[in-house]
Amino acid sequence: MKIAIAQLNYLIGDFDGNIKKIKTYTEQAKKEGADIIIFGELATCGYPPRDFLEFDDFIKRCEASIEELKAVSEGIGIAIGSPTRNPIPEGKDLYNSVYFIADGAVQYIQHKALLPTYDVFDEYRYFEPAQEFNTLNYKGKKIAFTVCEDIWDAGLENPLYQFCPLDKVAHEQPDFIINVSASPFNFSHAEARIDIVKANVSKYKIPMFYTNHVGAQTELIFDGGSLVVSPNGKVHRELPYFKEAMEIFDLDEVLAGEQHSEQPKDDIVEIHDAIICGIKDYFGKLGFKKAILGLSGGIDSAVTTVLAQRALGNENVRVLLMPSQFSSDHSVNDARELAENLGIQYDIIAIKEVYDAFMGKLDTHFDGLAFNVTEENIQARVRGTLLMSFSNKFGNILLNTSNKSEMAVGYGTLYGDLAGGLSVLGDVYKTDVFALARYINKDGEVIPENSITKPPSAELRPDQKDSDSLPDYAILDKILYEYIEKQKGPAEIISMGYEEALVKRILKMVNRNEFKRYQTAPVLRVSKKAFGMGRRLPIVGKYLS
Amino acid sequence: MKIAIAQLNYLIGDFDGNIKKIKTYTEQAKKEGADIIIFGELATCGYPPRDFLEFDDFIKRCEASIEELKAVSEGIGIAIGSPTRNPIPEGKDLYNSVYFIADGAVQYIQHKALLPTYDVFDEYRYFEPAQEFNTLNYKGKKIAFTVCEDIWDAGLENPLYQFCPLDKVAHEQPDFIINVSASPFNFSHAEARIDIVKANVSKYKIPMFYTNHVGAQTELIFDGGSLVVSPNGKVHRELPYFKEAMEIFDLDEVLAGEQHSEQPKDDIVEIHDAIICGIKDYFGKLGFKKAILGLSGGIDSAVTTVLAQRALGNENVRVLLMPSQFSSDHSVNDARELAENLGIQYDIIAIKEVYDAFMGKLDTHFDGLAFNVTEENIQARVRGTLLMSFSNKFGNILLNTSNKSEMAVGYGTLYGDLAGGLSVLGDVYKTDVFALARYINKDGEVIPENSITKPPSAELRPDQKDSDSLPDYAILDKILYEYIEKQKGPAEIISMGYEEALVKRILKMVNRNEFKRYQTAPVLRVSKKAFGMGRRLPIVGKYLS
Repeated sequence: MKIAIAQLNYLIGDFDGNIKKIKTYTEQAKKEGADIIIFGELATCGYPPRDFLEFDDFIKRCEASIEELKAVSEGIGIAIGSPTRNPIPEGKDLYNSVYFIADGAVQYIQHKALLPTYDVFDEYRYFEPAQEFNTLNYKGKKIAFTVCEDIWDAGLENPLYQFCPLDKVAHEQPDFIINVSASPFNFSHAEARIDIVKANVSKYKIPMFYTNHVGAQTELIFDGGSLVVSPNGKVHRELPYFKEAMEIFDLDEVLAGEQHSEQPKDDIVEIHDAIICGIKDYFGKLGFKKAILGLSGGIDSAVTTVLAQRALGNENVRVLLMPSQFSSDHSVNDARELAENLGIQYDIIAIKEVYDAFMGKLDTHFDGLAFNVTEENIQARVRGTLLMSFSNKFGNILLNTSNKSEMAVGYGTLYGDLAGGLSVLGDVYKTDVFALARYINKDGEVIPENSITKPPSAELRPDQKDSDSLPDYAILDKILYEYIEKQKGPAEIISMGYEEALVKRILKMVNRNEFKRYQTAPVLRVSKKAFGMGRRLPIVGKYLS
Repeated sequence: MKIAIAQLNYLIGDFDGNIKKIKTYTEQAKKEGADIIIFGELATCGYPPRDFLEFDDFIKRCEASIEELKAVSEGIGIAIGSPTRNPIPEGKDLYNSVYFIADGAVQYIQHKALLPTYDVFDEYRYFEPAQEFNTLNYKGKKIAFTVCEDIWDAGLENPLYQFCPLDKVAHEQPDFIINVSASPFNFSHAEARIDIVKANVSKYKIPMFYTNHVGAQTELIFDGGSLVVSPNGKVHRELPYFKEAMEIFDLDEVLAGEQHSEQPKDDIVEIHDAIICGIKDYFGKLGFKKAILGLSGGIDSAVTTVLAQRALGNENVRVLLMPSQFSSDHSVNDARELAENLGIQYDIIAIKEVYDAFMGKLDTHFDGLAFNVTEENIQARVRGTLLMSFSNKFGNILLNTSNKSEMAVGYGTLYGDLAGGLSVLGDVYKTDVFALARYINKDGEVIPENSITKPPSAELRPDQKDSDSLPDYAILDKILYEYIEKQKGPAEIISMGYEEALVKRILKMVNRNEFKRYQTAPVLRVSKKAFGMGRRLPIVGKYLS
């Protein structure tokens, strides 16, 4: 038996585009002799469709897509995720299901039982968990079907759910497991995915064919990395990351377990590639081509610009250099050097006159009050407005260049440098931004060395340095990681050896600046805990603030 | 037996403040002879605590609060919501529970079984549903405990859950039901709440004591309206809306069913009061006193200003009048008249010079391109920056004045008039803004009549009217309501008699402008479906866009 895995890039709600792509790959797999082709979870509508699932019209379009697939299923079995309706009144109205379609008819439907409802996932918002579990005989083989999370509870000490769905069909002795997934990337996810597929294979002693999505949907990036694991626990094949791919596997070869092929793994390389994928799909899927951003001479905007240029091409990235009276000479020079290295269009617009025009209007109202964060923010907002005016006039999406450390402690100006349609580095701590810069420069200087080595500064008042108001990033990032990613409380973090006053000050800054993050652009998610849909905190509250 | 209901205003994560308040009311109830006092759901930590629940340190603080309550429980039974830990490894690590504490010990804990996970609710994100149900004998009475949603599945044709928790204990013939709730306001919620409590009482033939929260937590507003319903289905007492209150009831009188007392109900009055509550708590709980906003002479900013003045006092509301070359004379006059009517501080700052300073910098880059939305947005962003500079300099929170109709179709400038820390009218359609204005003026002109009657205009280009680019609000709002609140698809809406091209254009505008709503302030929720945490849609997608 030959089994094809198709890891594809879907667009949410693009029923025509998705089904066309699915049909094309099905025809191709059939031509190449596949008996079965496996697509991803909710592949008809794209993942995550979010509240579109609450629209009956949207579900009807999913159902129509399944109808269309019947017509191409002669001689090939198609495993594909799509929502189905719950026929009984009790419970949620939908299931998250995998269809198996062959010879013009739906042969089997398995609903998902474990509904991820944590971090970026909201599945119990829409779906009823499955209560029934069966296998299907197809061409002499018995198949067990699972949807994504259904396999993720195996072998855990503190499982999130009450049971493993595969336990319900193990006694039927299936020949292999199919899993249709939409499992978003983070830089440690490829390892976790391999581990969990192996845990299932080792538990049930049968191979698994695991299909993921690829491509980005707003903030979520799907890396592909679909898997075929042999009963002996060997990764028979890990499909490429961040690329659409269809590959066909011979079941006997998979059972033999003699092959082993994995993708190379490196956190910084994966983050680099994921962000490029994220930018590319954000623009492409929204129908935009061109980006604009402010280039300050600092490392964050430099790295963002390089990633944008790699995603969109140098002809599609434009930058503004917007020095103020507080900008150092090297800022403009470093920024210009980067723009020239990349071959992108740049313009220099000094902001002093506009800033002065604002202050001319405000001086009488601010009479006698000292220069403070107000005037710093005005500079940042003049820049934001200039950038947005290019965005509006020329149709460029403004990219936000704030990093995760700044976003965490609120070091940034709302409607100023926090403006933009997409946050490129909002899930990358400053220390990792440096690592990205080093990786970008690995084959020669792209980002001017000075942008990497000079002390970080917002340059909004004379001789300002980030270190005036923030601890060293090497310490800050570690404390932030314990609080944000590991959800440790102050006592636990202090007990790790960090200074009490510092820990309390940092956690307070994080919590008090929730209002800024609420109003920032979607953040490309590359870690296990990104700001945005996966981290939901009250703005009004008193805990640690 | 005497039973007290305490509907209180908690602050999320303010363990010291919440427990102090809970203890004070407990002592008071004891003094007044109550046998039992009932507080709300998750009252120790405030509701909704959201992802703070994922912090072990936060749960420990909840547990410490329960310990403190034991000390005041001599001679009084305290029913109070608080999270508890799931002792077995399987499933989520927490339950959402109601404790019953008396005579220095926890007498009973009932976990919540029905976990709302829709709209603004995320409870399955944190909690495992209850599997066990019992009653408690206390002072000769048998009590059935429920937490909020546990009672909401009774009598529905299409129930969201598989069973009603009270069905599990009905055979024990409890004497009454206690429900601890945190059920957020919308303008039709009071009726729904009475209906569902009545449905339970009529099903189980026993009275219910239902306790809600009061006060606002960021976007969610709790209106109180706690209920005591007699077995004959009469509302024995509905507690006031938007006010903390503690009242004590005699069980025999409730059983007799001879009293009936409900609050007056009027959608516009409730919206008016809810928004005032929302503003007041947003400021008070964040430790702010003063608001600033831009007053255009139009109806949205006028209504927002009145609501802010009623919430914060006229000494705490400051407005800027920021005419441009496109502003009509009446705009400044109408705005000034309102400010004078309210006795609030106003300043007039013409934006032309700052706008010109921007254009002086941009003209060479925009060479030959016509005036368009770019220049309109620059005006809005100059205003946003001026307002934010007052916010920063004087510590005033900027209030956003956009209404729900504009937010829906994206009629507003990001970082311009869409700026602000709190959206006051973002859940109020334009047609309801008019109704609010009429209500505000019911005892005499507060808002100048001209602000209400003149054709709405953004005044960003010569002779601009909203109707140049939008359909009449009377039609627009109806179509938006069908799509946003009722989740109808285009075919359904068109079949109601609306023009096909118009419906498609409007739904497309709604979907394509998701990116703007993503970056706007939290919206005070007054309807069943507000923008923000209760409506989660992808930015990147192709459905109806």
